[in-house]
Amino acid sequence: MKLVLLRHGESVWNLENRFTGWTDVELSATGEQEAGEAGRLLKKGGYDFDICYTSYLKRAIHTLNHVLEQMDREWLPVIKTWKLNERHYGMLQGLNKSETAEKYGEEQVRIWRRSFDVRPPELEPGDQRNPARQEQYRRVEAASLPLAESLKDTIARTIPYFEEEIRPHMEKGNRVLIAAHGNSLRALVMYFEKLTEEQIMQVNLPTGVPLVYEFGENFTVKEKAFLGDPAKVAEKMQKVANQGKKG
Amino acid sequence: MKLVLLRHGESVWNLENRFTGWTDVELSATGEQEAGEAGRLLKKGGYDFDICYTSYLKRAIHTLNHVLEQMDREWLPVIKTWKLNERHYGMLQGLNKSETAEKYGEEQVRIWRRSFDVRPPELEPGDQRNPARQEQYRRVEAASLPLAESLKDTIARTIPYFEEEIRPHMEKGNRVLIAAHGNSLRALVMYFEKLTEEQIMQVNLPTGVPLVYEFGENFTVKEKAFLGDPAKVAEKMQKVANQGKKG
Repeated sequence: MKLVLLRHGESVWNLENRFTGWTDVELSATGEQEAGEAGRLLKKGGYDFDICYTSYLKRAIHTLNHVLEQMDREWLPVIKTWKLNERHYGMLQGLNKSETAEKYGEEQVRIWRRSFDVRPPELEPGDQRNPARQEQYRRVEAASLPLAESLKDTIARTIPYFEEEIRPHMEKGNRVLIAAHGNSLRALVMYFEKLTEEQIMQVNLPTGVPLVYEFGENFTVKEKAFLGDPAKVAEKMQKVANQGKKG
Repeated sequence: MKLVLLRHGESVWNLENRFTGWTDVELSATGEQEAGEAGRLLKKGGYDFDICYTSYLKRAIHTLNHVLEQMDREWLPVIKTWKLNERHYGMLQGLNKSETAEKYGEEQVRIWRRSFDVRPPELEPGDQRNPARQEQYRRVEAASLPLAESLKDTIARTIPYFEEEIRPHMEKGNRVLIAAHGNSLRALVMYFEKLTEEQIMQVNLPTGVPLVYEFGENFTVKEKAFLGDPAKVAEKMQKVANQGKKG
């Protein structure tokens, strides 16, 4: 039983080092290339899928589209769900590193970044960015939509979705690809590898690099590998670590 | 109750005037533009959707992707089904007009084009193009896949799918967009408008022009309109008619 996770390629806000969260920004030109390269790696590695999952955010959807195009698998079923969205960064969304430090202080920013269960400041309910006011989430019960999330909150929506919707497909023998975000994928990594809160905070997923899990009995991880040139993967992970793990 | 039908933009084989059918060719540059324009027309007209349907063929899938991108609706659910594929042209697939006439005679070509229930020559089961041998259709029961289709055959798979899968969504109030092909959409037009076999053969849907149906009681057509500049639509319909209604 195998599963492939893919973090979307670089977005235009990654470039500007802004907190993105649920802001629906495009992939950068580099991000599009990364996505295409991920597709070529998967094809070259002989991977194939029966069903794909992605978020409601276009940087993940476009990443998946590029992958499927490279793999000549555009006819595969694709399920989109907000449960795989990036962590919601509340009032931090749109701010860059220095703006955030100026507004809230460096120590506070450090806490939001490094802590497992501390939420950034919530959006005002009247804020246009409140998901409950956005067309994109009109089919979702307003009460279940966040105004800001800790990593713990992100995990609390991602894992039940995985258990209820994705894992049963895998157990029926379907090969699954998930194209999503730094923190929604971290949630899955924590769950698969049974990591502690401290351990998961150290995990940095590189953008646009397929991460392959192989599971044995009782859904225990038998093998885990990034596809592609290891030096390139390591370099990408370091880049993400330096950015402070923002989504 | 409204429904929007959209025939994919020009493909690279439309350009070469070849029988395409289930051959999975790309949109041409013009086709990509047509698709984007369809999206802009729908957005400008205030249209919105709850669910989208398309075929297994990339010229329809890409058309839908362009539309959703223009409408900022990429997060909408998209269902892909082979039941909305183009008519299967059997052994004619890949041949252009003059090659076909040379091989089979002009009178025979006329019969295949103009008749409602005559199939073109079937693919050999061992032909690589037999859908039952293609990855793309591996989840479909082989016995239900065609080796060639008359328009009648196309209708016989498209209408039951519409009745069982799409119409119930519409009756629950969902707004549906279908991005598909000349002949699978013709099937729907025949069904909605209760056309005879002779009448449907005269219908030519323009590429990349949204066709809006509004239904009243008992699913009767109350209104029908193409979006966009009427002169441009008429010109496109004439172009398609001249091409001999190939998909």
